[in-house]
Amino acid sequence: MTTEFRSPCPIASTLDIIGDRWTLIIIRDLLNGKKRFSEFLTSPEKITTSVLTTRLGALEANGLVAREIYQTKPKRYEYILADKGRQLVPILQAMCVWGNTFIDDTWAPPASFMQQ
Amino acid sequence: MTTEFRSPCPIASTLDIIGDRWTLIIIRDLLNGKKRFSEFLTSPEKITTSVLTTRLGALEANGLVAREIYQTKPKRYEYILADKGRQLVPILQAMCVWGNTFIDDTWAPPASFMQQ
Repeated sequence: MTTEFRSPCPIASTLDIIGDRWTLIIIRDLLNGKKRFSEFLTSPEKITTSVLTTRLGALEANGLVAREIYQTKPKRYEYILADKGRQLVPILQAMCVWGNTFIDDTWAPPASFMQQ
Repeated sequence: MTTEFRSPCPIASTLDIIGDRWTLIIIRDLLNGKKRFSEFLTSPEKITTSVLTTRLGALEANGLVAREIYQTKPKRYEYILADKGRQLVPILQAMCVWGNTFIDDTWAPPASFMQQ
């Protein structure tokens, strides 16, 4: 699967990769230490297994996440943030600031998240 | 139309408002001076009239954009960024940095855009 870019605009091209309601939630969870398929399912947003499967596949195809086998029978994988995924942190931090400013009753992010 | 928030996470809640492939492209165009429906249609990403109508309606409902009439027969509107929309700039700037770093051949944004 190759991402088709709508234009050479860096904003539009970034949105071609992360412009949906779920991808950055998975990145948030990876930054907070989650690694396994079952762990992502426990987040409060209640992602479905089919959306999670699709998004993890796209994240891997786009090089934001790597997959490592940790059990062979049956095969089980852990998902590891690649540098290309980790470098999304400033976007997530800016979203925290905006969300805390403009959406009532949002959680304050941990200082460790905002200062990494 | 009221946005339903999936959780009190500020990242998830922000994505509930701007988490799609088109909303931030309209915000980019507004920041760059576009105001009229027909102007948004000329951007290189080629948004369709139906997607543009839907997204402008959601932006207005969420208070990111205000609509002002500029012609009465027939009625024509201009779209104006509200403060809540303008404060998305740091998210767009972070997307420019990420896109320029990780996606080949993306445009360098104008210095005026990155320094506002």
